[in-house]
Amino acid sequence: MTKSNKKFAVGLDYGTNSVRALIVDVENGDEIATVVDSYPSGDAGVLLDPKQPLLARQNPDDYINGFYRSVSGVVRQALDVKDAEFHPDNVVGIGVDTTGSTPIPVDRNGIALGLLPQFKNEPDAQSWLWKDHTAFAEAAEITEKASHYQVKYLSQCGERYSSEWFWSKILHCKRVNPKVFEAAYSWVELADFIPALMIGNTNPDTLPRSICAAGHKAMFHTQWGGLPSVEFLGSLDPDLVRLREHFNNETKTSDQAAGQLCEQVAAKVGLPPGIPVTVGLFDCHAGAVGAGIKPGTLVKIIGTSTCDVMIHPLSEPLATIPGLCGIVPGSVMSGMYGIEAGQSGVGDIFNWFVKNLTPESFTKTTDIHNALACEAEKLTPGESGLLVLDWHCGNRTILVDQLLTGLILGMTVHTTAPEIYRALIEATAFGALTIINRLEEYGIKVNEVINCGGIAEKSPLTMQIYADVCNKPMKISRSPQTCALGAAILGTVAGGYYKNVETAQQKMTGVKEKIYVPNSHAVAVYQRIYKLYHDLHDSFGRNENPQSLYHVMKELIDIRENVRK
Amino acid sequence: MTKSNKKFAVGLDYGTNSVRALIVDVENGDEIATVVDSYPSGDAGVLLDPKQPLLARQNPDDYINGFYRSVSGVVRQALDVKDAEFHPDNVVGIGVDTTGSTPIPVDRNGIALGLLPQFKNEPDAQSWLWKDHTAFAEAAEITEKASHYQVKYLSQCGERYSSEWFWSKILHCKRVNPKVFEAAYSWVELADFIPALMIGNTNPDTLPRSICAAGHKAMFHTQWGGLPSVEFLGSLDPDLVRLREHFNNETKTSDQAAGQLCEQVAAKVGLPPGIPVTVGLFDCHAGAVGAGIKPGTLVKIIGTSTCDVMIHPLSEPLATIPGLCGIVPGSVMSGMYGIEAGQSGVGDIFNWFVKNLTPESFTKTTDIHNALACEAEKLTPGESGLLVLDWHCGNRTILVDQLLTGLILGMTVHTTAPEIYRALIEATAFGALTIINRLEEYGIKVNEVINCGGIAEKSPLTMQIYADVCNKPMKISRSPQTCALGAAILGTVAGGYYKNVETAQQKMTGVKEKIYVPNSHAVAVYQRIYKLYHDLHDSFGRNENPQSLYHVMKELIDIRENVRK
Repeated sequence: MTKSNKKFAVGLDYGTNSVRALIVDVENGDEIATVVDSYPSGDAGVLLDPKQPLLARQNPDDYINGFYRSVSGVVRQALDVKDAEFHPDNVVGIGVDTTGSTPIPVDRNGIALGLLPQFKNEPDAQSWLWKDHTAFAEAAEITEKASHYQVKYLSQCGERYSSEWFWSKILHCKRVNPKVFEAAYSWVELADFIPALMIGNTNPDTLPRSICAAGHKAMFHTQWGGLPSVEFLGSLDPDLVRLREHFNNETKTSDQAAGQLCEQVAAKVGLPPGIPVTVGLFDCHAGAVGAGIKPGTLVKIIGTSTCDVMIHPLSEPLATIPGLCGIVPGSVMSGMYGIEAGQSGVGDIFNWFVKNLTPESFTKTTDIHNALACEAEKLTPGESGLLVLDWHCGNRTILVDQLLTGLILGMTVHTTAPEIYRALIEATAFGALTIINRLEEYGIKVNEVINCGGIAEKSPLTMQIYADVCNKPMKISRSPQTCALGAAILGTVAGGYYKNVETAQQKMTGVKEKIYVPNSHAVAVYQRIYKLYHDLHDSFGRNENPQSLYHVMKELIDIRENVRK
Repeated sequence: MTKSNKKFAVGLDYGTNSVRALIVDVENGDEIATVVDSYPSGDAGVLLDPKQPLLARQNPDDYINGFYRSVSGVVRQALDVKDAEFHPDNVVGIGVDTTGSTPIPVDRNGIALGLLPQFKNEPDAQSWLWKDHTAFAEAAEITEKASHYQVKYLSQCGERYSSEWFWSKILHCKRVNPKVFEAAYSWVELADFIPALMIGNTNPDTLPRSICAAGHKAMFHTQWGGLPSVEFLGSLDPDLVRLREHFNNETKTSDQAAGQLCEQVAAKVGLPPGIPVTVGLFDCHAGAVGAGIKPGTLVKIIGTSTCDVMIHPLSEPLATIPGLCGIVPGSVMSGMYGIEAGQSGVGDIFNWFVKNLTPESFTKTTDIHNALACEAEKLTPGESGLLVLDWHCGNRTILVDQLLTGLILGMTVHTTAPEIYRALIEATAFGALTIINRLEEYGIKVNEVINCGGIAEKSPLTMQIYADVCNKPMKISRSPQTCALGAAILGTVAGGYYKNVETAQQKMTGVKEKIYVPNSHAVAVYQRIYKLYHDLHDSFGRNENPQSLYHVMKELIDIRENVRK
């Protein structure tokens, strides 16, 4: 058999519960082979502590083993696909995206501390997953200090630093576990950790750092020379200054190569060495690329949480938008601001309900979500009388406050499980609308919404409710693995096959035929209900008047933390 | 065998789901025999309409057949009890209590319209159960009209007329079903309907009417000559004036006889004719008697809803207490004000949770409440971070507003079913404390709390939480069927065996040895949480400042009612 000239790219997507490896045909985006490797540790890959509900860690070993299993697996699978004409020599590039901010404490050699025998069972030495919110006090402290500082480090990330982010987590580790903190030579974002592994340079001082991770989560900006100043970090804790020294102060966009696949790794996965490997980026940014993002297009990556991404030309003016997770030049692609917003809990909230509050009549099936959705779909908007605040995991945008909690109201003794399930979906739609409104208030017009991720794929009810609540058509990205596709697209650019991301997107992305169109009757009802959501949102979420109920959720958390001591 | 001289009384207790007949020894309250007859119609005796969640009706036939089955059954059972020395000739009196306000439309002969062939399947022609809240608009209208009227008809019932009550329901029937309204010659409270049946006088014009029912629910007071004036009722609807004429304007206390058991009925139940039958009263008032109520003692009858009863000497001054269900001279016993407060939903809320939101892991048992309580008991107060408003059935005291709904807040994605179950119990305890506070603010000191009813009997967790939240010891009435016992006690007085209720109570009532004592640590935590409950209570329950969230529940109900049309 003659060797084909068809070219391919590999996309690697590190999610919350698993890593996915994808091989695509670079000419048309055809997905040749996919392997999903579920993290074996903890609860679906997440290390939990029942005594600390805000804690969420991961075992770094799951990432590394997951890398080898998924990539070698996907190469073998692609070789077996008839007519695919796949050959490892024809891989033009490998892209990587991950969750974030998911920092990992590492030693001088870049080895994750959690892999060392002495820290094997130490949660604080593992990877601090994006949804770990233990550092809420440190986040508040950073926000407070930054708000008075001469350099406006938070101007590009909504004026509030989050407990999900890099420095909050590191500072919290210093406070609660000085031993781990001392042992850490540096902390590396998962988005940087994986490319470093692949190119064989895990030295914390020199390994390539992603502008996406650094810019969105670590207060990195060329405007102030990279990381925050020695003075500022030192004012938080003198020991942070040491870490600052072990962080490559040159960041790159993810359409650039971090390096080339090293021999040792290449041999283990069945690929030739030397393939360009991109600088990593966050999954939602990769998803935005894979969904075909362009100015005016909002890409929603809907999973356990939701990331909302837009881009805006660097050449056009852009306001500071309070409450957004970040506005970072180049974080999605070169030449564009990457604008990130998001909801802390979406699928997580639905899963919580299925796991904890769904009666047997709906759980005698393999697809409990579908069983609930079937009944929920029969309801008319407004019929249940329920209203929910979707803050079970806090609120990322626009309140940037992880110390908020979920609320359900309107219950009678006739309220059913499907009614609540629908109200939970509606609440996440109201949360989505709040973000769209915020973007548009600040001059970023949303002309199109493209959804991707598991929920967008699998829940027509959710998509219809989103269309009705947001009063905008909801499109679905053609690929069911948009993030991995986006990573692969970036791989084609980093590998020099396409000259830029836009050209690659034209060849490799698209939306599905089915578009969810708003129903005018539902739109009208939801407009009324959204006003009420907004009133609850502001009363519980903002401390702006003496009659607000802002203190209620805060004090309940304070009581909870005190009685648990 | 020589015929014994031991004397007995019969107590009949019409609850929401069943009727209970009890035979007791009048010398010591020993309970010789009990029969419970469950109403066969509808959902556990309640006729529902999925399209109208506020509707709750009952089939009058269930009451009548239940009477014959339970009384004949209890007589047969008592005759079989060895050593009881029961003989039908030695029954000194029969007492009757029922739910209320539960008015029944009747024809000229006192026959319930629902029993007539033409109205057999007409919900509006059946009995309007206490917890039917369809008449909320009419209740608001009556409150509004009464507040501007020269005679202060609502001064003794908390200044707000309820959708649960007599005239609201009748007026609503006029509005939605004129055909039934026209066919009704009068409306008779269930508490009057049953004694009328027993004494063989069902003529609406002359059948004895209970001061308890009339005073608490029908704006009846000797101060203004009985029922509200022709002018006032006519201003609500001219047709109400006609009904007013067919209502015996002489009411009686329930330690008086309505008449004597008539021959026809006596023959069917195995008792001799001529036994004195009391005027009926509401179940909670009978329960208060059976629990040993005296001035300073709060009796809580905790069931699907909760009634709180106190008494206060007529000879001592008593303020008007806003938000109470009623302050009626003689409604519990002669010489005392009967003071009634209550919570619209308690057991109903727990049952709702068990039925709709409890996962399989807790439902693989015959006692799901117990399975949840076992886990809920392991939690420390405040540990769940949850807070609930117990308004799933509205709020009877102190807000007197059926258009309120339930609320849960503080959820994370780690919140479990037992945590919510416990928070529901805590919420009803906060509701209970709100009532105690209101009574004490108006000078009625609560020196002692005696609980009775199914939940007080069966849920140690609930009783301990009530003790901790209210910071008062919780005692439990000795009898597990306190309402029926109270009815029997009233039967002994109406029958002339005891000269007054107090004397009968001394012989026939008591509390259990187990008393739930407040735990000081829990008390302190609950005091913090109660402040937050109170803030939510006032923000959602009162329309007193522009930043309150009072409108939210109201508008959701308005939307719900509109989309259902």
